[in-house]
Amino acid sequence: MDLTAMGKKAKSASRQLAVASATVKNQALQAIAQALIQQTQTILQANARDLEAAQNSGMKQSLQDRLLLDEKRIRGIADGVLQVAAQPDPIGEVLEGFTRPNGLQIRKIAVPLGVIGIIFEARPNVTVDAATLCLKSGNATILRGGKEAFYSNQALAEIMRGALEQSGLPADCIQLVQDTSRASATALMQLNGYLDVLIPRGGAGLIQAVVQNATVPVIETGTGNCHIYIDESADLEMAARIVENAKTQRPSVCNACESLLVHSAVAAQALPKIQALLEQHHVEIRGCDRTKNILGDCVVPATEKDYATEFLDYIIAVKVVDNLEQAIDHIMHYTSGHSECIVTKDLRSAEKFTANVDAAAVYVNASTRFTDGGEFGFGAEIGISTQKLHARGPMGLKQLTSVKYVVYGQGQIR
Amino acid sequence: MDLTAMGKKAKSASRQLAVASATVKNQALQAIAQALIQQTQTILQANARDLEAAQNSGMKQSLQDRLLLDEKRIRGIADGVLQVAAQPDPIGEVLEGFTRPNGLQIRKIAVPLGVIGIIFEARPNVTVDAATLCLKSGNATILRGGKEAFYSNQALAEIMRGALEQSGLPADCIQLVQDTSRASATALMQLNGYLDVLIPRGGAGLIQAVVQNATVPVIETGTGNCHIYIDESADLEMAARIVENAKTQRPSVCNACESLLVHSAVAAQALPKIQALLEQHHVEIRGCDRTKNILGDCVVPATEKDYATEFLDYIIAVKVVDNLEQAIDHIMHYTSGHSECIVTKDLRSAEKFTANVDAAAVYVNASTRFTDGGEFGFGAEIGISTQKLHARGPMGLKQLTSVKYVVYGQGQIR
Repeated sequence: MDLTAMGKKAKSASRQLAVASATVKNQALQAIAQALIQQTQTILQANARDLEAAQNSGMKQSLQDRLLLDEKRIRGIADGVLQVAAQPDPIGEVLEGFTRPNGLQIRKIAVPLGVIGIIFEARPNVTVDAATLCLKSGNATILRGGKEAFYSNQALAEIMRGALEQSGLPADCIQLVQDTSRASATALMQLNGYLDVLIPRGGAGLIQAVVQNATVPVIETGTGNCHIYIDESADLEMAARIVENAKTQRPSVCNACESLLVHSAVAAQALPKIQALLEQHHVEIRGCDRTKNILGDCVVPATEKDYATEFLDYIIAVKVVDNLEQAIDHIMHYTSGHSECIVTKDLRSAEKFTANVDAAAVYVNASTRFTDGGEFGFGAEIGISTQKLHARGPMGLKQLTSVKYVVYGQGQIR
Repeated sequence: MDLTAMGKKAKSASRQLAVASATVKNQALQAIAQALIQQTQTILQANARDLEAAQNSGMKQSLQDRLLLDEKRIRGIADGVLQVAAQPDPIGEVLEGFTRPNGLQIRKIAVPLGVIGIIFEARPNVTVDAATLCLKSGNATILRGGKEAFYSNQALAEIMRGALEQSGLPADCIQLVQDTSRASATALMQLNGYLDVLIPRGGAGLIQAVVQNATVPVIETGTGNCHIYIDESADLEMAARIVENAKTQRPSVCNACESLLVHSAVAAQALPKIQALLEQHHVEIRGCDRTKNILGDCVVPATEKDYATEFLDYIIAVKVVDNLEQAIDHIMHYTSGHSECIVTKDLRSAEKFTANVDAAAVYVNASTRFTDGGEFGFGAEIGISTQKLHARGPMGLKQLTSVKYVVYGQGQIR
């Protein structure tokens, strides 16, 4: 597959898409949703081929489940597309506007980024979610999914391309890389001149590979080594409920809690309450010596590595600290910059924590699980950015835009 | 030079700087300005060493001039620092704030990026300009200047570090890489985990090297292949003055005009007017056949390469086009995404041009030379971003910030 040729097609399509009206884009999104429903059988047949290969290769059951599509899931994907269509169009918004003393009228206007590359792993729904969020925000996409979902992705992409053409937009607004080799991934990471940004969606390994190899601009997403710190003044019942929720409500996601820090003055009271809730979910506690002294033999001794690990599992690392400053230092050492939480009744502790902890989202008395585009009210998201450039936190439609300064003069020169 | 050690120091300093008040930062900036004036002789002695080496190596006179510091230039640099001190502090601004239906109070707050790397060439004033803009916006800097300005940069950095210490901020808010080898530049480009962004300031070669080698996030700046298109309906006197200004007022800068496109219906009238003004500045015209037919032997035949070149000199490429669409296509093929201009009296042409030309700044009836932080009213700038991610156009203090979501709850869980 000639990625440069795909890049040229994407760039050309992106020019048409950038000036398409919200009405045209919404009609295309509705046509995509409709086509997905109408062609459900085609999608299921393609998905069956992927699933058969997965079974033959002995893929883990949990991964097979992520790969699986059924009528209900396809309906869910189509509903998601309709929700994106219903969101306000971010393009063309005048973000600032002013007149300079010399009479120049300057407007700062939201425009699409242009062409967005998405590299993702074995979840075929990402094909549709990512492509349609990009479409709504006026961006062409080049998608490169994992080989495990190849036939499913191909069917979904072809259906979306057909719907685009019916709606009068170029099919090349959405392209799928047909080659799932590592070489094609690397080529996409280095498609300078055509890709305005590359967004990896997947595990830490994928994201590291992109950061190391990409020469196009990248937005890092989704690594979450999230902490909860229970302050001396915390409401311990509230703290226990927040820890239980952040650890166990959905342990496999990036905003789940991985580490718990407890002030030494309340550890003896707090830890048994928390342990009682966590053991109902069979959570393994890896703790420091002081944690073990309080909770006893149920605690596995924690290693340095445990505090650095995003478990994404029913495991939590626990450490007793002597004060707020120690908690902040621990977090700043181990954080991936995703979501961090303090449970406290003390205003100064809350203010110190939120000022000194540097992460996309910093919580006072709420579960880290709220770091999410839907929960923040931004609508569907393409990922949670854990870098500081361009976008930080949940990335919705607004975060998929750039700006252009449009300047009207009357012959001004310098 | 151990860049990892510098990265650790910068990160530690940046944590203190991130929570420093505007008052403390402004006091430090005032101390820096004062120290630069008081230690003018130290700076001049260091600069003399650089200039002597430059003369011995046979450096071009224009480059020697860029390297030269004198009392007036040092006063200018110090004044620039005071102007930065006088600008509003961008940190802590609440950019959005809302309460979710579940009671979560979410604020999106401007925070520093963290640690900013700056790679630059032979202009010692960049050392102070860049470091102080970063300081005001709460960011620590690691500066890596060209070897030609080594002693000047070292003197300037030491003076700034001394002033920081006097003001109670860590000296390591500003660090200069002492090793000016290519290896140190590459190491800085790959200082992942410590650099939040790297900004190259210099020529196209430097910027390409950074884009190709960096694994940290980068903001591309300053390449400007800027066009002016004279529409069929243009005021031709205005058009000629704008072309003269954009080409000749300061040809060495990125917002200078490099290519001129003229509608065929007005080319025979417009080109002689423009040529008459440009010849006073000894501008060489490289034109297409139709340009040569109109202007005669003063025109050098233009090659494909001329249309792609940022001359930064008294040279202009000229092409006659048949309509607005051809002009837009030509620009979209050759643009570096910096500044583009249409001269027209026709509203539909103006609207079509500004909608379809994708660049940081798109002008109607004004010189491209206005793309500048000062001219836009943003104050001092660290560069003009020509990429679409994070910042586009003049980058002032606001563009040196990121965001943090601070979320206050009352025990909310999902």
